[in-house]
Amino acid sequence: MSAYRSHTCGQLTAANAGETIRLSGWVHRVRDHGGVLFIDLRDHYGITQVIADSDSPAFADLEKLRAETVIRIDGRVKLRDASLINPKLPTGEIEVYATATEILGPSDDLPLPVFGDQDYPEETRLAYRFLDLRRDSLHQNIMLRSKVIRSIRNRMWDQGFTEFQTPIITASSPEGARDFLVPSRLHPGKFYALPQAPQQFKQLIMVAGFDKYFQIAPCFRDEDPRADRSPTDFYQLDLEMSFVEQEDIFATIQPVIQGLFEEFGGGRPVDANWPRIPYAESMLKYGSDKPDLRNPIEMQVVSEHFRGSGFGIFAKLLEQDGTEVRAIPAPKGGSRKFADRMNAYAQGQGLPGMGYIFWRKAEDGSTEAAGPIAKALGHEPTEAIRLQLGLAEGDAVFFVAGKPETFEAVAGRARNEIGRALELTDENQFKFAWIVDFPMYEKSDEGKIDFSHNPFSMPQGGLEALAGDPLQIKGYQYDLACNGYELISGAIRNHRPDIMFKAFELAGYGHDEVEKRFGGMVKAFRYGAPPHGGCAAGIDRIVMLLADEQNIREVIMFPMNQRAEDLMMGAPSEPTNEQMRELRLRTLPKD
Amino acid sequence: MSAYRSHTCGQLTAANAGETIRLSGWVHRVRDHGGVLFIDLRDHYGITQVIADSDSPAFADLEKLRAETVIRIDGRVKLRDASLINPKLPTGEIEVYATATEILGPSDDLPLPVFGDQDYPEETRLAYRFLDLRRDSLHQNIMLRSKVIRSIRNRMWDQGFTEFQTPIITASSPEGARDFLVPSRLHPGKFYALPQAPQQFKQLIMVAGFDKYFQIAPCFRDEDPRADRSPTDFYQLDLEMSFVEQEDIFATIQPVIQGLFEEFGGGRPVDANWPRIPYAESMLKYGSDKPDLRNPIEMQVVSEHFRGSGFGIFAKLLEQDGTEVRAIPAPKGGSRKFADRMNAYAQGQGLPGMGYIFWRKAEDGSTEAAGPIAKALGHEPTEAIRLQLGLAEGDAVFFVAGKPETFEAVAGRARNEIGRALELTDENQFKFAWIVDFPMYEKSDEGKIDFSHNPFSMPQGGLEALAGDPLQIKGYQYDLACNGYELISGAIRNHRPDIMFKAFELAGYGHDEVEKRFGGMVKAFRYGAPPHGGCAAGIDRIVMLLADEQNIREVIMFPMNQRAEDLMMGAPSEPTNEQMRELRLRTLPKD
Repeated sequence: MSAYRSHTCGQLTAANAGETIRLSGWVHRVRDHGGVLFIDLRDHYGITQVIADSDSPAFADLEKLRAETVIRIDGRVKLRDASLINPKLPTGEIEVYATATEILGPSDDLPLPVFGDQDYPEETRLAYRFLDLRRDSLHQNIMLRSKVIRSIRNRMWDQGFTEFQTPIITASSPEGARDFLVPSRLHPGKFYALPQAPQQFKQLIMVAGFDKYFQIAPCFRDEDPRADRSPTDFYQLDLEMSFVEQEDIFATIQPVIQGLFEEFGGGRPVDANWPRIPYAESMLKYGSDKPDLRNPIEMQVVSEHFRGSGFGIFAKLLEQDGTEVRAIPAPKGGSRKFADRMNAYAQGQGLPGMGYIFWRKAEDGSTEAAGPIAKALGHEPTEAIRLQLGLAEGDAVFFVAGKPETFEAVAGRARNEIGRALELTDENQFKFAWIVDFPMYEKSDEGKIDFSHNPFSMPQGGLEALAGDPLQIKGYQYDLACNGYELISGAIRNHRPDIMFKAFELAGYGHDEVEKRFGGMVKAFRYGAPPHGGCAAGIDRIVMLLADEQNIREVIMFPMNQRAEDLMMGAPSEPTNEQMRELRLRTLPKD
Repeated sequence: MSAYRSHTCGQLTAANAGETIRLSGWVHRVRDHGGVLFIDLRDHYGITQVIADSDSPAFADLEKLRAETVIRIDGRVKLRDASLINPKLPTGEIEVYATATEILGPSDDLPLPVFGDQDYPEETRLAYRFLDLRRDSLHQNIMLRSKVIRSIRNRMWDQGFTEFQTPIITASSPEGARDFLVPSRLHPGKFYALPQAPQQFKQLIMVAGFDKYFQIAPCFRDEDPRADRSPTDFYQLDLEMSFVEQEDIFATIQPVIQGLFEEFGGGRPVDANWPRIPYAESMLKYGSDKPDLRNPIEMQVVSEHFRGSGFGIFAKLLEQDGTEVRAIPAPKGGSRKFADRMNAYAQGQGLPGMGYIFWRKAEDGSTEAAGPIAKALGHEPTEAIRLQLGLAEGDAVFFVAGKPETFEAVAGRARNEIGRALELTDENQFKFAWIVDFPMYEKSDEGKIDFSHNPFSMPQGGLEALAGDPLQIKGYQYDLACNGYELISGAIRNHRPDIMFKAFELAGYGHDEVEKRFGGMVKAFRYGAPPHGGCAAGIDRIVMLLADEQNIREVIMFPMNQRAEDLMMGAPSEPTNEQMRELRLRTLPKD
């Protein structure tokens, strides 16, 4: 027999009754029922109940055990009395009568219990991550993550992709975030960078003639702390394909993601209809480029009803260029109480407030529009708004007005809030949409034209389009939104050096600067580059959605804390003098 | 029809004859046969022959094409004349008559041709890696690597392992090589390190109660240049198991590795007998702890035949403590010419020479021993040596003498050389052996006791053994040798803090230093650590063996050169002033 176990702690059933067996595991819980010890013995696979009475030679040793001690148990499998069967445990039909035991790994008093659901401060949990990871929910999250990644890999291979590793110690990559640098010892004064993403490498792989690449890729960004992301690194499903157009990529990735959510979504419905929503339409209807389509509310432009109307504030606003009034319909929200609540919400979000109309039953039994706006606007425009939005008695509508960029984000959040508050949003499902036709360029506050997203995307219309107004140019660039999150971002790439130089020129980057910053890739494009495109999906985000967790640290085995410290391993730490000497570096004192 | 292709360049067969199709790919080669163009069009999947004559509307465009231009071809599939069928190509039965073409990606004149087998300097190949990767043999190596890794993953899952990612930005790890450091911006003056291996993390995963971990793990070491390794990073199959003994690990890993070599070894036989060879025995018989067992030669100790003998040099040497004479038998090596050749080889390796005896047919038809040693030694001892080694007429034996540590390595190389020269070694196969019972400690030149390998290994005999002579203690530590290479290294770990502190104490490390250097792991061992062990297998090495390549850069997509530079991406490079300011670092001038 093995020195440690004949079975795991999740394996024994009634079929094993009478067998002499050996188990090893952690002491999950000890109960002393008047001279009979009940020990829940736990390993990765499950929990088995071990019992010992004073007749057992193991009794004296078992009696002294502390929780989380690792022990070996030799014993006999017994059927439990019918009344004691635990149908929730796979091993719930049996118990093991211990005849011998050995302590394999003793335990001190625990700073963090494993048994029980008590909450502990995150810093304690991170400092004793090895204990926290023994707890069931975190243990299951980490297992889920691993299974999700395995499933992604298999699905990608099934789609004809091959996984390639790209360098981790490399040159600065042009993702626009801050690089982690790595000083070179062999080349003092020079530094490597950790890749923010394998963007250039995957494009080079296409130029090298590999057709369908993917990678579960570690990406590194020196980020300032934020709750929902790691301050150092994250993983993405990175993929790229040659000889494809945008719809080819959509057709490839949908079965992968949809299948994944069906496999691991815990039975929550996964909508197979993935609409293509132009960016501008998404901003208008949902106030977001990652709309939550579980929420049925769609905003509409209602400016015409206010232009020159009796509601002076909006009428005056609309005299300015580029202003609009948009309506957020709120079916079943037709009460002053709800209207006041949403008005307060908007004020909390930094708007002066949110105008509204709601429709209620009048004393004469007819439907009447209530609220100051309805009164100022008058019957006809109010009714026109109601008809446009398809609203009825008991419903409400909220208005936001001004230049869209000033209110769109708040309007989007208000839409979420209304959907949630009125229970219009069925949260127990996954709904996806491809957001397409992102603008290539945007104007900064200083009036400068810059890339709005990825500078390597192919502009729609190619070289000719670049001759027109930059702000009108759309890119072959797309995101996948799921339940209000951006799951995937991607593009058809600009594989033509002539178009690339022109695209950069519009954003104020000269020929030399492009050569300097992206030299490897630009050089490659001169020797036969195929049309190609791809995308990247956030693994941590996907696992969070599937595990229904809000904190990224619940789905990572050994996360940093928000200050980018590993409290368990003690990173970062002071280097030795010898290390600094070898790297020819000196730390500057604080100002 | 897709904008780019209806089929890949490896897909069309006689069954498609008559179809109108669309292909995209690279112009591999153009031949002009008097008004008829033959174009080999290549993509990831294969090559298709495209033809055009002057009747084709595409002729004028195709005539001007440079090699490696990316084009689209529309055309009709035609059966080739029987005499022109190319059975080596999957598409060899057909050709495509081009009716239209479009240039998708133009190409400048090539610094490195893709077509043909001409050798190019490695620096050129690395600077234009995207072209080099289009060449068939490198393309196939990279595909092999990917398939090997996929197969490893599937085999590990099939064995019940789960893959977990461990941190890449972390603390210094105690592997003994040089760390790559990463300066922290949020904690000026402090540094992270890239992991030399996930050693501590995988042990923590065991302490956290996950039972069977593996990872295709990137490992980072700031190494000085050497031809057969990457100067920055490498990949290993890293695995760890709880509640196991050494033989459990062997039983788990053998099917994985053996299956892998059977799957990808190109039909070369894979020996299923993996002997366990104690380290001391391996050094004696093979002069190496990574013996090449394809070579049948086994060395033997023959000191007794020389002690007090007429061969004064050895007789005198043997009077010193710790000296030995070992014999390297060389069946069929019985000629003065071969003996001289091996003697010269030994001198080239830094030995004064290698004594020898060989057996030849005497003039009277009997067998006689030849060479100065045989003469000095006399008939009886010479014959005893021949009998001990089982040699006969036509065979030879070579001798090395002195303290084993001074000659073992050279003797091992001489054994390889003899095996190769005499064609005793059948290179066309894979032979494995577990090398076990490594010594825990060794004495340095200054007489100091230090760990000979991994300080985290469990000493055989546990705490009691540590009370005796350190140099006699063996560890539960093992390597897997294959064809003269170390493929795997591993150990049963020391999971008991008491034994660990004692083991470190023997090597001169105090309690505080152990706490400081390995604090995270030592802390974890205090809260219920299971017995555990594992190993790591070098992925690059495995792929090199399977691909029959000698240079690691032939099995890595984007390798560094030997000076740790990426010539394509320009790494390492000078940081910007802003980066240095943010990191609060300054580079020191050269001395």
